[in-house]
Amino acid sequence: MKELLFGAAYYDEYMPCDRLAQDVAMMKKAGINVVRIAESTWSTCEPQEGVFDFSHVERVMDAMEEAGISVIIGTPTYAIPTWMVKSYPDVLATTVKGRGIYGARQIMDISHPVYRFFGERVIRKLMEHTAHRKCVIGFQLDNETKYYGTAGKNVQEKFVKYLREKFHNDLEALNDAFGLDYWSNRINGWEDFPDVRGTINGSLGAEFEKFQRSLVDEFLSWQSDIVREYCREDQFITHNFDFEWRGHSYGVQPDVNHYQAAKAFSIAGVDIYHPTQDDLTGAEIAFGGDMTRSLKQDNYLVIETEAQGFPEWTPYKGQLRLQAYSHIASGANSVMYWHWHSIHNSAETYWKGLLSHDFEENDTYLEACTIGQEFGKIGSHLVNLKKKNEVAILVSNEALTALKWFRIGALTGGESIVYNDVVRWIYDTLYEMNIECDFLWPESENFGRYKMIVVPALYASPEGLLRQLNQYVKDGGNLVTTFKSGFTDENVKVSHKVQPHILRECLGVKYHQFTAPKNVDLGGEAVEGIEDKRAKVFMEMLVPEGAQALAFYDHYNWKKYAAITKNRFGKGCAFYLGCMTGKEVLEKVLQDALQEAKVEIPSERFPVIVRKGKNDLGKDVRFYLNYSAEKQTAQSNLPSGHDLISGIKIAGGEALSIEPWNVRVIESE
Amino acid sequence: MKELLFGAAYYDEYMPCDRLAQDVAMMKKAGINVVRIAESTWSTCEPQEGVFDFSHVERVMDAMEEAGISVIIGTPTYAIPTWMVKSYPDVLATTVKGRGIYGARQIMDISHPVYRFFGERVIRKLMEHTAHRKCVIGFQLDNETKYYGTAGKNVQEKFVKYLREKFHNDLEALNDAFGLDYWSNRINGWEDFPDVRGTINGSLGAEFEKFQRSLVDEFLSWQSDIVREYCREDQFITHNFDFEWRGHSYGVQPDVNHYQAAKAFSIAGVDIYHPTQDDLTGAEIAFGGDMTRSLKQDNYLVIETEAQGFPEWTPYKGQLRLQAYSHIASGANSVMYWHWHSIHNSAETYWKGLLSHDFEENDTYLEACTIGQEFGKIGSHLVNLKKKNEVAILVSNEALTALKWFRIGALTGGESIVYNDVVRWIYDTLYEMNIECDFLWPESENFGRYKMIVVPALYASPEGLLRQLNQYVKDGGNLVTTFKSGFTDENVKVSHKVQPHILRECLGVKYHQFTAPKNVDLGGEAVEGIEDKRAKVFMEMLVPEGAQALAFYDHYNWKKYAAITKNRFGKGCAFYLGCMTGKEVLEKVLQDALQEAKVEIPSERFPVIVRKGKNDLGKDVRFYLNYSAEKQTAQSNLPSGHDLISGIKIAGGEALSIEPWNVRVIESE
Amino acid sequence: MKELLFGAAYYDEYMPCDRLAQDVAMMKKAGINVVRIAESTWSTCEPQEGVFDFSHVERVMDAMEEAGISVIIGTPTYAIPTWMVKSYPDVLATTVKGRGIYGARQIMDISHPVYRFFGERVIRKLMEHTAHRKCVIGFQLDNETKYYGTAGKNVQEKFVKYLREKFHNDLEALNDAFGLDYWSNRINGWEDFPDVRGTINGSLGAEFEKFQRSLVDEFLSWQSDIVREYCREDQFITHNFDFEWRGHSYGVQPDVNHYQAAKAFSIAGVDIYHPTQDDLTGAEIAFGGDMTRSLKQDNYLVIETEAQGFPEWTPYKGQLRLQAYSHIASGANSVMYWHWHSIHNSAETYWKGLLSHDFEENDTYLEACTIGQEFGKIGSHLVNLKKKNEVAILVSNEALTALKWFRIGALTGGESIVYNDVVRWIYDTLYEMNIECDFLWPESENFGRYKMIVVPALYASPEGLLRQLNQYVKDGGNLVTTFKSGFTDENVKVSHKVQPHILRECLGVKYHQFTAPKNVDLGGEAVEGIEDKRAKVFMEMLVPEGAQALAFYDHYNWKKYAAITKNRFGKGCAFYLGCMTGKEVLEKVLQDALQEAKVEIPSERFPVIVRKGKNDLGKDVRFYLNYSAEKQTAQSNLPSGHDLISGIKIAGGEALSIEPWNVRVIESE
Repeated sequence: MKELLFGAAYYDEYMPCDRLAQDVAMMKKAGINVVRIAESTWSTCEPQEGVFDFSHVERVMDAMEEAGISVIIGTPTYAIPTWMVKSYPDVLATTVKGRGIYGARQIMDISHPVYRFFGERVIRKLMEHTAHRKCVIGFQLDNETKYYGTAGKNVQEKFVKYLREKFHNDLEALNDAFGLDYWSNRINGWEDFPDVRGTINGSLGAEFEKFQRSLVDEFLSWQSDIVREYCREDQFITHNFDFEWRGHSYGVQPDVNHYQAAKAFSIAGVDIYHPTQDDLTGAEIAFGGDMTRSLKQDNYLVIETEAQGFPEWTPYKGQLRLQAYSHIASGANSVMYWHWHSIHNSAETYWKGLLSHDFEENDTYLEACTIGQEFGKIGSHLVNLKKKNEVAILVSNEALTALKWFRIGALTGGESIVYNDVVRWIYDTLYEMNIECDFLWPESENFGRYKMIVVPALYASPEGLLRQLNQYVKDGGNLVTTFKSGFTDENVKVSHKVQPHILRECLGVKYHQFTAPKNVDLGGEAVEGIEDKRAKVFMEMLVPEGAQALAFYDHYNWKKYAAITKNRFGKGCAFYLGCMTGKEVLEKVLQDALQEAKVEIPSERFPVIVRKGKNDLGKDVRFYLNYSAEKQTAQSNLPSGHDLISGIKIAGGEALSIEPWNVRVIESE
Repeated sequence: MKELLFGAAYYDEYMPCDRLAQDVAMMKKAGINVVRIAESTWSTCEPQEGVFDFSHVERVMDAMEEAGISVIIGTPTYAIPTWMVKSYPDVLATTVKGRGIYGARQIMDISHPVYRFFGERVIRKLMEHTAHRKCVIGFQLDNETKYYGTAGKNVQEKFVKYLREKFHNDLEALNDAFGLDYWSNRINGWEDFPDVRGTINGSLGAEFEKFQRSLVDEFLSWQSDIVREYCREDQFITHNFDFEWRGHSYGVQPDVNHYQAAKAFSIAGVDIYHPTQDDLTGAEIAFGGDMTRSLKQDNYLVIETEAQGFPEWTPYKGQLRLQAYSHIASGANSVMYWHWHSIHNSAETYWKGLLSHDFEENDTYLEACTIGQEFGKIGSHLVNLKKKNEVAILVSNEALTALKWFRIGALTGGESIVYNDVVRWIYDTLYEMNIECDFLWPESENFGRYKMIVVPALYASPEGLLRQLNQYVKDGGNLVTTFKSGFTDENVKVSHKVQPHILRECLGVKYHQFTAPKNVDLGGEAVEGIEDKRAKVFMEMLVPEGAQALAFYDHYNWKKYAAITKNRFGKGCAFYLGCMTGKEVLEKVLQDALQEAKVEIPSERFPVIVRKGKNDLGKDVRFYLNYSAEKQTAQSNLPSGHDLISGIKIAGGEALSIEPWNVRVIESE
Repeated sequence: MKELLFGAAYYDEYMPCDRLAQDVAMMKKAGINVVRIAESTWSTCEPQEGVFDFSHVERVMDAMEEAGISVIIGTPTYAIPTWMVKSYPDVLATTVKGRGIYGARQIMDISHPVYRFFGERVIRKLMEHTAHRKCVIGFQLDNETKYYGTAGKNVQEKFVKYLREKFHNDLEALNDAFGLDYWSNRINGWEDFPDVRGTINGSLGAEFEKFQRSLVDEFLSWQSDIVREYCREDQFITHNFDFEWRGHSYGVQPDVNHYQAAKAFSIAGVDIYHPTQDDLTGAEIAFGGDMTRSLKQDNYLVIETEAQGFPEWTPYKGQLRLQAYSHIASGANSVMYWHWHSIHNSAETYWKGLLSHDFEENDTYLEACTIGQEFGKIGSHLVNLKKKNEVAILVSNEALTALKWFRIGALTGGESIVYNDVVRWIYDTLYEMNIECDFLWPESENFGRYKMIVVPALYASPEGLLRQLNQYVKDGGNLVTTFKSGFTDENVKVSHKVQPHILRECLGVKYHQFTAPKNVDLGGEAVEGIEDKRAKVFMEMLVPEGAQALAFYDHYNWKKYAAITKNRFGKGCAFYLGCMTGKEVLEKVLQDALQEAKVEIPSERFPVIVRKGKNDLGKDVRFYLNYSAEKQTAQSNLPSGHDLISGIKIAGGEALSIEPWNVRVIESE
């Protein structure tokens, strides 16, 4: 990337009037240098089967090329046209609810040959019209691809073939691995394979979801191969990943293995949506950014993020700009809004763009102009920002799915949580401590490059991965892991060895029982001086086998058991949280672990967020982001530098004043 | 109407024993002079296909005629017999959930030829048996007709034909109007028209619901034509409308356009159900009455209202009588209970009639006797009560439907509301101020007859209507309108002009952005001295363009924007509420508007409710209704008169004492 | 029974490794003398259609026989194998949601000939392998059988035939009994019988559920006949009943008439699951035990109860033992855990057995060892414990179902409750007073053996039963009954006589109206000195006709009506609760009734629970159970005796100290 990309999705197709010239003018004023077009526009590109019309695409490329604005072309495949469903209703995914009805996007069977046939044809036609264009800098494959619950006969038959291969045609092995004897679910002939949509077997169910995720990998790889045939060397291929959605981007995406799927692209792309106004913390920006950057251990594109967004997201003054710098501070090479203009009909009328429906300048647009101006001025100091983090968090789709089948906590009415609750408990605490992280996946290599690895609730894991973690500690790494880790194998079969099974070795602790705590407090050094001492949601009765108990359960019935432990193992140190706690307790344990790992803990704390990187000029860059409505102060931790925005000199250790919802960016001399 | 009708629905068919003689005697004692029979009794009238048996109907008519009690005949078509579904299962409506199962009422496709064939035949047979009878004073078509979600193949094909006509066969125009390009929903050939049940396009979806409502108009008009063939001149045709149901009658009926559907009747009829005991306010009685009276700008029938009702509705002493006078005070010519006796089986066993299941006299029945006695004595002074209201509220089914697709407020977890929440916020505040209202619909004419029109959340509106409102103000009218008005056209396409679009002219205000307020108070004169200053649910950032800001947003980020404005335009004045507020703030704004409109504001306030009218004798009548458990005082606002019930003289301005849950009715001399 | 059975369900089929020898050793250490095997293992017993393999069953019997551990054989029919559904998909029950999908247990049509054919064959094969074995002491038919909503064409046709017989082919009678005229549901030809799944008629709906329950009776009786062909005289036939499930065993089982279904067994069996830790009260153990013991008025088997159970149920120290003694104290002859080991896959991984997944000794297992040791020592003093209770509670499946159709209380948004809420309100109050109860059913005989009968909400009842209650009081019995009793007949048709209909005679009270109370307190002697005076959920306006008002409604509108009454009738006394109250008010009324009935009220109160019985040695046995975390004291009410566990002597009236979550068992000299 030569420059920061600043842009928006642009849909000429959705315009209620001819706006192209005015829009380009307003974009130029805002410093916008890229637009993303064409994704989801199949019904305009191919209005009838085999009839193509790329006039919208052409006219936008023409206008952008003339204006010097780059274009990213999205393949239109994530929303299918009416004619396809009318003629070939089988393309609609059959899910656990049966065959769907036309209407929404993302309702097709992504593995279906009819869909693939038409998909390939429209992609090839689109590529012929766009790939050679000067303005076109890259391509986005589909959009937020998932498997949409597809589980029709064809998909289930593929799944049986997949299992046959996985288990080397050995049904006995399959029955054993999944424990199918339970409730007479045993399959004694491949032809007896039941409709998997009704299964109550978490192992079989989780395996099916894993298989369904693999359909996404295969689909994106298939699209990538087609697009690559047409691509110039200077054009990238990306995709727009998204996250578990809880009204905003929240955690690991359940339906896609980002690590695997990302192999189909040359650069990772992502959308990140988050609360704003009083609820803006930057945590989702950092989380999504750290995860996406880690996919290819490189800079990434923010392909979509909110401009005005939902009614309740209309940003306060300063917030849009603060958000933009936050993305860059995480290593993004782009900030692109979804979308340029607010849509006048259909489902996303209240997911507002930079412009309101009236196309007039407004407070949000005007703030974008400021951002564009600054990016234009100092973008070359911010692009391709490289990070070297010392801490990583290991996440796993398999653990997530397994913990959807087997929630953590009380099962007859009390509180229970899922995987991403644990992930965000860990991540957000580190975020507020200003500890920058990378992410690792089970398939990742070279754990040794990190001083500390945090492993939340790794409930389903192959033995090899657990041994790798033991070895990591033995070799001098520092591990923090939590309840539920190592509990089952990759087939979601609970180990019949003493828990935490293989990790028992590095953790120096075991347990035979657990419960959902009611009125249980923690005692011991890890909770000293902390107000919220509660054990929350789930607790394991830990028995140290060499480990030091940092906390125990302060309850008459459980007081003989440890709650949090620390164990020196080989050259490293391994911490175990046997229960969920408040953030303060977690932070104290993390501090201990970071000190063991010799990772520096910044003195700044949320709402002041500090991010670091090295730019293309080889200079150190520091971002000091103020996520509050009050003025804050930070201390520059560069020997000497200057404020990139204002240009003023900053001495080492100098106190930096940061205005509400504002940012200071310091570059070393 | 010659006299007030006082009565009940009577089902000889449902009796566990022969009760007719005793029931007639108890009716006579209670002063009941009308019963409604035959509706929903198809399976007894036509026990087998083509076999008719009107013996229940005949014997009730005989008994009533002898006793001098009038009869209203309901056509039995809103519940279909088992034999029809067994032989012709296609008559069951296919909805978004698929084909239904027999059991409930109102489950058929009201447009289906099989249903229509049998319906016509049974109506004609019933008319032959009843129309000539002396006791029969009128007919009710079907009951609470709606379209029951009917959306089968035949209905969808009719819808496509309807669209083809609406858009003059121009698919391009349809795609543009509905914005179908979004998410590839574009329809490029009529034969590609997708199953509309799955649409995510609010414009298409809302249009389909409008089309479905038109099925109700057509159905009732078809029945009316049949019935009219048999009707005597002195017999009326009516229907029993109902309202949006929230455990009781709440607001505008989403599934029927009352204004259009009412064209099929000679007199409007309605059912009104409401909470009682401590929760009895009279608001639903007034709301439903005002709306139904406005349909034909004439008196109307209350065809159903609760006697004992649900267990939690058993009335306190005085409440049944208070309710009865409230209906009359709104211009009703009847108070009819659903129903005479409580039903011993099936679904509505706990929707209790005047009599409990034991057929004995009870407190509620005894209070009905008092009402009947009084109506007998003074009914001729109360029947055909005419009103001349100065204020009207404009309501719209199209706005309601559109705001079901696009709720008002936060969309990712916070509070959001729908159309009727705004309507009732307005109506109830006026009600508590004792400002009597009429209702208007988009199709209504002659807005100029009102000094003031209130327009809640007119979200979807043809341009003509908005211009009409501008003109109304220009000509001296006074308008109060709210957030979201004028936002989209009749196709639920958001305007791409600055909002509030066409109304910007009369309101003298514009806005580019809005949000869902969190911790936002109002400042300014409109909230002075008011405790609850909160902006609620939704707020627009108003920029006055000539208007006066009555309130602004008292929040650090929004303080430059107005919240409530007032604008002189031509000879009138237009008020705009840019956000939802507490009732006190709304009342203050309404007071200002009423003063501008020179509408007198009564000194009485809820729980004393004052209603006015002129009777057949040309005398002014005033009702003073006490909706509380405490004695209240009001001031007679007639120069001189007398208490119709007690007969005592009342001087002008005399203080009237009103007992708990009681009423005074004063007639001018 | 010669000895107390102490055991667990054991699934060799589910083992992740060969564990049999170790498990037997650990069982012996724990004093386990019985295992239940084979239920739900169809897919291992018959891996392919007609191919049988009982090797798991054989090897477990071999091992147990050698170890001297008894075996109960469960027929495997409650979970069907995949091959059956693949070849004969019709065996899946068609419910109101349509045909199911394979996966869970209990998804078949238990009346289907295909299922019956295969079921019979596998049972016969299993019996051939097991019935002759020395270790096999009995058989369990199926497991927790219900009708699983089965309502396919074949089931509905059977239902019509059933109705034709019930109504002697008289459709008119059926229409009248069910009130089908309402909403045109009248059936005028048997061939018109509609799909009953959609009915809104509570009478028809409740009758269908009663018919569905009869399928369970017939199914179990069919299995029993098959099993009995193979049974030795010394082998028992039982079944594992369960209760209404609210996250734990709660109340009367809606889908099975225990009284009828139990006729198929020689001994009653049951599973009881309940909260533990701070929420352990023993109420569910006592409730389930009292009900199951009453089925055959004999000792019963606890075939399943929790060991570790759900995560939130991991017992505190002492609780497992306290629970075991509580079962025995109710007359159980067994305490059997579900299950031995925790399952490593599928749906019930977190329903943990005595052993965790690691098969190691743990706190819960170790406590089981204590129990086993003690049972071994003193079991002969505890087995076959006989009770002679003076109080009984009459429960009814018909009332339960009817009150599901017609909930008690507010129907438009306020609070409403169902049958088991009333049952447990009654039962739990008696339990806390240490009044031991039996249960009666409408079909029970000889009410006169009880001094007092409590009848909660007997909403649907044949007239004969109500007359029987009148006679019971007349003859000197004492009756406490509640609101809603006697309201409808066995067809859920509300009586058209004055309520409480036939019971009016013994109760000396009537009412015409009722409501759901808002802000209504009670006054009068029954609430004197009690803090919580509220009338709750539902209230009837009682008019005493000879009865004494123990409480009236302290509310301005209802104050003339009684709320709770007491009436001497013949030689007995009848109490009526016209409304729901707090437990204190109920207790005061029950005390009054118990005094009238001359039933002794123990001085101990919950958390000390006292249970009584006579053992095989003819000695009186008393259990003093401490359901709290604090030490408690009770007073021995035996003239003299000894502590069975410690062996120490206990004088009459001696104060017994009971440790937290502990028990004292005293046997008379």
